[in-house]
Amino acid sequence: MSAAKLTKVRIVGSGLIGTSIGLGLIQGGVAVEMVDSDPQSQLLANDLVGGTRLSSPDLVVLAMPTSQLPMVIESEFAINPNSTFIDVGSVKVEVELKVKTVSALSRRFLPTHPMAGREIGGASSARADLFQGRSWILTPSQDLEPGSKAIVLELISLLGATPIELSAVDHDRAVARISHLPQVAASLMAKQLSGTPAAWMELAGQGLRDTTRIAGSDESLWKEIIFSNRAELRELLINLQNDLGSMVEALEDPEKIAALIAAGRTGRDLIPGKHGGKAREYSYLPIVIDDKPGQLGAIFNECAAMDVNVEDLSIEHSPGQLSALITLALSGSDAEKLSSHLGSIGWNVHPIRK
Amino acid sequence: MSAAKLTKVRIVGSGLIGTSIGLGLIQGGVAVEMVDSDPQSQLLANDLVGGTRLSSPDLVVLAMPTSQLPMVIESEFAINPNSTFIDVGSVKVEVELKVKTVSALSRRFLPTHPMAGREIGGASSARADLFQGRSWILTPSQDLEPGSKAIVLELISLLGATPIELSAVDHDRAVARISHLPQVAASLMAKQLSGTPAAWMELAGQGLRDTTRIAGSDESLWKEIIFSNRAELRELLINLQNDLGSMVEALEDPEKIAALIAAGRTGRDLIPGKHGGKAREYSYLPIVIDDKPGQLGAIFNECAAMDVNVEDLSIEHSPGQLSALITLALSGSDAEKLSSHLGSIGWNVHPIRK
Repeated sequence: MSAAKLTKVRIVGSGLIGTSIGLGLIQGGVAVEMVDSDPQSQLLANDLVGGTRLSSPDLVVLAMPTSQLPMVIESEFAINPNSTFIDVGSVKVEVELKVKTVSALSRRFLPTHPMAGREIGGASSARADLFQGRSWILTPSQDLEPGSKAIVLELISLLGATPIELSAVDHDRAVARISHLPQVAASLMAKQLSGTPAAWMELAGQGLRDTTRIAGSDESLWKEIIFSNRAELRELLINLQNDLGSMVEALEDPEKIAALIAAGRTGRDLIPGKHGGKAREYSYLPIVIDDKPGQLGAIFNECAAMDVNVEDLSIEHSPGQLSALITLALSGSDAEKLSSHLGSIGWNVHPIRK
Repeated sequence: MSAAKLTKVRIVGSGLIGTSIGLGLIQGGVAVEMVDSDPQSQLLANDLVGGTRLSSPDLVVLAMPTSQLPMVIESEFAINPNSTFIDVGSVKVEVELKVKTVSALSRRFLPTHPMAGREIGGASSARADLFQGRSWILTPSQDLEPGSKAIVLELISLLGATPIELSAVDHDRAVARISHLPQVAASLMAKQLSGTPAAWMELAGQGLRDTTRIAGSDESLWKEIIFSNRAELRELLINLQNDLGSMVEALEDPEKIAALIAAGRTGRDLIPGKHGGKAREYSYLPIVIDDKPGQLGAIFNECAAMDVNVEDLSIEHSPGQLSALITLALSGSDAEKLSSHLGSIGWNVHPIRK
């Protein structure tokens, strides 16, 4: 394999994935240029990333929906004829076919798919650690230049992800099951909420929230993914539809209901526990505060005084209540330190949860 | 309403819900006795909670599956003929019918349903704050004694939950949609994972994990809930089945796919933003800050000085990164006010998002 050295990367598309790649690369000491057809997105992305103008990038990342690839792929190749190229789209057989139509390009174009994302898109949701501990799938063609592959492997390594090689066909089958089917299931489940009285929706708990979280995703992105992978999705959708029919038939027999719920748990147990996400070992400190201005500021002043860094925070207000429950995510030692300090000066601190 | 004073509570059933109630009550200064048909469970629960033997409890909590109520309800009533009773089951029409068969009992039995739980059951998963900020549904009969209702309201208040009155029929309809249908959808989605190669499962991301989280639930609990509420669930299941059929038909037409995914987002948007909170139209103000103690405190001090109330907050950063993006959820007018103020004193404020 040729020695590669990744120093300059041009990222075309400053959405969630493109900007997150940019953030991660800058941290790794790589020069980055963020490019976007929307000037405001480009501005925010470059502000966040610290991008600069670059010439002759080692790598051009096409971070856009697959349907937009044809509009930029040839012009990008014309500007940077010696660069290596990747895309980051969710379906790969289609990209493989597109790239093959330009033979010079296909030797330096590696279709890829980072297995990371959020239901909120856009540069402002980007995170440098989005790919940490995630899988990054490569579907290389047989004529790919070894130097190009080495450059892409360096990118993936810098971003903390794990490269996994699959054929484009196997990739599309796998993501149909573990990503595209769950998206359709979540969206259609959420669709059933239509028309529910607001008073009933107030009762929603974490189960409904989790089950439908990805139903908040953007339909313009997902219509492309689902359409592109429809050949693999069709049978999976029909199987799920049939299982719903089985549940309707099982409703008069508790043991048949139990068998279907148990089959779900068996399927759920196949999901690995420790992959697919960087384990963040936070401790959680719940504090009940008065729900009024000044309270959060006071707590954060105490955090600063104690040299405690808040990693994340959630705020839960209850209807009709004058108090709010805030939960701080902290390192274990910071949680202990802050808990005893806040408790000693009269804050309503609850036991730390791991 | 009669003056109530909750001092002694007998909790029959020492699973997750019963033990969590016990823990919360002890913290609130109420004497508790944990009772369980399994002596070892009873011992563990009393150890966890700090329970004691009690006579003449103000309140008896029947914290067991609804199918087990008939086995204990009359004996418990015989032991404590002057106590108030509640159950905590997930389906209420059935309980209402059972209670009505004993007229003396029905005046002091209030069917309830705390909207809290975890996918892990058992006393060892219990938490004193399980009900904090959650809704607790009451379905009182017309002949319920006011003193009994006052006692139950005191329990709910002590545990930090918010009481919500519904008819038993409306309760069962509401939970069919916001709890039981999501359970079935998650379980049947997870069932589709059966037979997936382990190498593909390694690619699973957060979307699949969230969508199927509650599929890890116990089938012996859920077979009862689903069976008890089958009358309300049947049509919802058939609707979901039909929508899956619509998706299969839509696969050749991206715009039809988009319409179904968008309908899912519309349904998802009906879920209030906070636990039990109202859905509100927030504006989001992104601010890039140095990732070090003191920055958040400084911002919240500015919020307090400007009389701006922060509804929610997300912090996005990664260890080692020198800046963090915080996004404040605010009312529209507060967002405008804070944005121009922070901008004028040199904070790196980005455009407000709706």
